[in-house]
Amino acid sequence: MRANNPELRSWIDVPEDSDFPIQNLPYGIFQTADRSPRAGIAIGDKILDLAALQEKGYFQSLNIRNGTFQQDSLNEFIGLGKEVTNEFRNYTSNLLRSDNAELRDREDVDKMLVDQKEATMLMPVRIRDYTDFYSSEQHAFNVGSMFRDPDNALLPNWKHLPVGYHGRASSIIISDTPIKRPKGQTRADGQEMPAFGASRLLDFELEMGFITCKENPLGSSISTAEAENYIFGFVLFNDWSARDIQKWEYVPLGPFLAKNFASSISPWIVTLEALDPFRVPGDKQDPQVLPYLEFEGDKNFDVNLEVAIQPDGSSENTVTRSNFRHMYWNVNQQLAHHTVNGCNIGICDIYASGTISGPTPDTYGSMLELSWRGTKPVKMPDGSERKFIQDGDTVIMRGHASRDGVRVGFGEVRTKVLPAD
Amino acid sequence: MRANNPELRSWIDVPEDSDFPIQNLPYGIFQTADRSPRAGIAIGDKILDLAALQEKGYFQSLNIRNGTFQQDSLNEFIGLGKEVTNEFRNYTSNLLRSDNAELRDREDVDKMLVDQKEATMLMPVRIRDYTDFYSSEQHAFNVGSMFRDPDNALLPNWKHLPVGYHGRASSIIISDTPIKRPKGQTRADGQEMPAFGASRLLDFELEMGFITCKENPLGSSISTAEAENYIFGFVLFNDWSARDIQKWEYVPLGPFLAKNFASSISPWIVTLEALDPFRVPGDKQDPQVLPYLEFEGDKNFDVNLEVAIQPDGSSENTVTRSNFRHMYWNVNQQLAHHTVNGCNIGICDIYASGTISGPTPDTYGSMLELSWRGTKPVKMPDGSERKFIQDGDTVIMRGHASRDGVRVGFGEVRTKVLPAD
Repeated sequence: MRANNPELRSWIDVPEDSDFPIQNLPYGIFQTADRSPRAGIAIGDKILDLAALQEKGYFQSLNIRNGTFQQDSLNEFIGLGKEVTNEFRNYTSNLLRSDNAELRDREDVDKMLVDQKEATMLMPVRIRDYTDFYSSEQHAFNVGSMFRDPDNALLPNWKHLPVGYHGRASSIIISDTPIKRPKGQTRADGQEMPAFGASRLLDFELEMGFITCKENPLGSSISTAEAENYIFGFVLFNDWSARDIQKWEYVPLGPFLAKNFASSISPWIVTLEALDPFRVPGDKQDPQVLPYLEFEGDKNFDVNLEVAIQPDGSSENTVTRSNFRHMYWNVNQQLAHHTVNGCNIGICDIYASGTISGPTPDTYGSMLELSWRGTKPVKMPDGSERKFIQDGDTVIMRGHASRDGVRVGFGEVRTKVLPAD
Repeated sequence: MRANNPELRSWIDVPEDSDFPIQNLPYGIFQTADRSPRAGIAIGDKILDLAALQEKGYFQSLNIRNGTFQQDSLNEFIGLGKEVTNEFRNYTSNLLRSDNAELRDREDVDKMLVDQKEATMLMPVRIRDYTDFYSSEQHAFNVGSMFRDPDNALLPNWKHLPVGYHGRASSIIISDTPIKRPKGQTRADGQEMPAFGASRLLDFELEMGFITCKENPLGSSISTAEAENYIFGFVLFNDWSARDIQKWEYVPLGPFLAKNFASSISPWIVTLEALDPFRVPGDKQDPQVLPYLEFEGDKNFDVNLEVAIQPDGSSENTVTRSNFRHMYWNVNQQLAHHTVNGCNIGICDIYASGTISGPTPDTYGSMLELSWRGTKPVKMPDGSERKFIQDGDTVIMRGHASRDGVRVGFGEVRTKVLPAD
């Protein structure tokens, strides 16, 4: 795709460490003091205001209704499908390249650009259905080792299918939205009766999520070869988890209140197309998967991920560095599995990866694993320690891919934890 | 509520065995050859066309926007909240009573009424989030006895909290929509490798679902005392289940592809207010529940439920008779538990009960239990046998409450099973 050409430069200044060069062009919904919610594209430290551009008559050659960008979600735009949105990506890339004077030299160009620091980012999509997978082998191994048996850490089904479960869509929130520590039932080891109170084992889970752009009819399936036509793009995903609530409630039907109090996402949707140059092969799958899960080509993505904890009034401490490449099951397989029974995918569903843990203890994707169930407190650069997340902590996740001098990033998802009521 | 007065009669003829007397007034979305999708109320064998009434100037004294009923969902109407919808219920009850000539004697009254047999019922709501509970003790006991240990059939958490999990909203379908037998992975006992193919153990689950009408902000909770302000009404709910897929996939994160290929609902939403005369106490809860799950008053409902199987080209065979009163956890407790961690409820979420099994084997709510895992084939009145559901079978669920000569019913949810592709 020509929009990925590493030689491209924009007439908009893009700082060297920016996540948002002209090769990225992620979509979000923003508002400012004088602009109602609308769609934009991040470029450097600016936002290209797509509603303002359309008002000025841009995009008329594309099949996009007036008003599409003047909304509080990207659902209509994303639902136009890849044919339109990929053409749109090329169109805006062309508009922003340094040698194109069309927009650059307009007198009123400043009206089409907003400083990111002046904008409030909103949820980019109205999410319909949300599924969370469990697709990192190291994470599944760590959890199985802690709670069951290190010699049989993976359950028998794990290497045959991408285990997943349905999550709560209503409580998915945008970066910079604080959460309250959840309350719930827990039962201490050796006790017969449960107690009620604030969770003491609040944790993050470092995940990525993909957002869909196409429906399949109920009763039909999506093959691994077709899956990418259904994937619009990716966000960072913090799957907040209350470990003590989970332990008591989750048998036999899975996580429920331990998860559904909040999941946080980053505001900019980085398209599948922008990540195309960062494809890498996944680990070999052994045993051989069933035919419907076979795939061809490189379906993992080399995206560096990190999590920092910022205690109240203090500075950030990076506690882990992982990578999206550490996925045993790739997104094509996840979507093929999800629909092999005829389940229908919607427009702007979100599918999260499950915690992404790397192979070494400093790359694990949750405090549960980093502190090994609280037995090894994590020493942070500021000298403090953490077993789990404390009140007042802000958890910050960041991610970016980098190659040939081009950095395609996700910005961040940042969530402060407030005390329980 | 005066709309429940058992003495009320309508000027519309209501057959004696009808589910839809003037005391019911359930809401649905329908269309006909010459009417686009719109809201209606079932009364006898007719549908009162609410869009047609509003066009003629009715409901102007109520706070309801023009066009509210001229849509393909009830979400806007339901979202107006109980204050408006209860007033609306009294208004329409008054309009339909035999001694009110206002509508009855209009020359064009026939334009406001549609024969149910001329109408196609559509999904009554756009469902946001869907949760399935597991709240019938007999069902949980039966499943625990079959798959674990009859002496410890209930897991330790079961009597302390209403166990639940998130389900798939996109695949909830309306009555009369056929489904295809799902395909998926299963693993036979004693085998190491899974196989792929059509499910052989397809089952229904007899459930009821409630639909919400009010949001709570993320981070807040709903008490058992407040819960009914959030509950608009109820439908019959068939939670289709593929037992063989479920057995292989569900550890440790719960049911996924075994459930998300389809769930079927009945088209008419019977309001909480219409069910008010049919309240009954539930069984005593022992051990004592935690304070946030305590409640006052009668929160169970005496609704007779039944399931029939109609083989292709044959007649119906009733295979079970149960009752909604057999719920250990009531709907108030379910909603209080769901939100005690701050999870936010939406407008037109659906919350299903879990399989409702009565105390005796002829009242169990699934083929799994009726045939005791396939060991006791169910003999049907037509002489055939069933362990699970076969291709070509139509599964029909019905429900009604009855008291003081008034029958308030749900109609039916009817789903034919087609062979896998």
